[in-house]
Amino acid sequence: MKDINDISTQAPDNIIKSDTNEELLKLRQQLFILQNIFYAESKHALLIILQGMDTSGKDGTIRHVFSCINPQGCIVKSFKTPTEEEKLHDFLWRIYANLPEKRMIQIFNRSHYEDILFPVVHGLLDKKEVQERHEMINRFEEHLQKSGTIILKFYLHISKEEQHKRLEKRVTNPEKKWKYNSGDKKEAKKWDDYINAYQNVLDGCGKNNPWIVVPADEKWYRNYLVANTIVETLENLKMKYPK
Amino acid sequence: MKDINDISTQAPDNIIKSDTNEELLKLRQQLFILQNIFYAESKHALLIILQGMDTSGKDGTIRHVFSCINPQGCIVKSFKTPTEEEKLHDFLWRIYANLPEKRMIQIFNRSHYEDILFPVVHGLLDKKEVQERHEMINRFEEHLQKSGTIILKFYLHISKEEQHKRLEKRVTNPEKKWKYNSGDKKEAKKWDDYINAYQNVLDGCGKNNPWIVVPADEKWYRNYLVANTIVETLENLKMKYPK
Repeated sequence: MKDINDISTQAPDNIIKSDTNEELLKLRQQLFILQNIFYAESKHALLIILQGMDTSGKDGTIRHVFSCINPQGCIVKSFKTPTEEEKLHDFLWRIYANLPEKRMIQIFNRSHYEDILFPVVHGLLDKKEVQERHEMINRFEEHLQKSGTIILKFYLHISKEEQHKRLEKRVTNPEKKWKYNSGDKKEAKKWDDYINAYQNVLDGCGKNNPWIVVPADEKWYRNYLVANTIVETLENLKMKYPK
Repeated sequence: MKDINDISTQAPDNIIKSDTNEELLKLRQQLFILQNIFYAESKHALLIILQGMDTSGKDGTIRHVFSCINPQGCIVKSFKTPTEEEKLHDFLWRIYANLPEKRMIQIFNRSHYEDILFPVVHGLLDKKEVQERHEMINRFEEHLQKSGTIILKFYLHISKEEQHKRLEKRVTNPEKKWKYNSGDKKEAKKWDDYINAYQNVLDGCGKNNPWIVVPADEKWYRNYLVANTIVETLENLKMKYPK
């Protein structure tokens, strides 16, 4: 993967916002229909992993892309700082407990990748340990894929300036204040360390498990790209209602 | 509660389908917004219980009313025949494991009420045992309400003729075939026994936990009534984004 810093965080110039928003509405309708066949067919599980810096729009993507689908076939799991119980287990234990069964779409808001991001930025693991964990993750994902789970990994890519703006909004906008966390600004100062850790995450993943880097400074483009990728993935399955 | 057989399964005469469908679209938009405040405020949990005969539209209600909300704040749990593990516990054990935390909307597709329906119809419990279970359920729900959970219980009320039509569609419609279960027609023959069991369920619930009987022969009216009840319930909470 090329240097993240060289990948634009903005929509390509030839993409028009109003057209894209219209397209998103159509994609949401398609997703609603495709999900029903996916559920009925029960051949695959779909695991969608959302990663990105604080304020990169993980919650917003879920709210605006997935608030068109049947919640009976979709589960969202947000991974926070591991609990005391979770810490007593290996780092994939809590992930395993939240894997989707066939016919389900499971969205991970943060994921096992936090375990090779946070500890790296905070100097809790050395290079070899990180490398080992990354190999474990690759093998784990390969195992899932061989067992019928489709994995889509989105890295929501924002600029440092955009993050700054969004953190300010959390302080001033009454509808966003509840999301404000006093630790956010502290973590934001480690921007470069996080970028480096993400670079390793993007570089080190297996060939069959590529990350999709989503330019995410503009929410409308981010939502469109995520929705479009999922619809294309489901369409490629050539699904049918079972007899 | 009056005799279920005397309650209409159809929309009132003065309700117009096209207006109601437009109203549903508005209600879905309101629900999307209200849910966000509900989640942010984190003061209550909302438990929505859907019960009704086979084909009464539990799945359809979820698909058409709730496919407008953020799946991050909504979980659907379908209760099937108890597993071997579940049978080794009391009948509320599996229910407890699926209760919503504050800020979440939890939908039960069938529920603990199955435990005073199926065993009654199949003669597995005597009157006294059923009565005891019902009291346990009432106390359980009161406990939840006192602990900040709002409970909405919908009985989707269809006619025997409508059920017959819908079961036929499951055999002939390629998009519905996957829902067909060879046991459905066998259970349908016990219509009167189920109606009696439901009558007891509706009659025996506590004053603070009334059932909402939803005329459900027409899907458009059913969806509207469920959506409208939920929106009114959330609006009455006078919620605010926290500071």
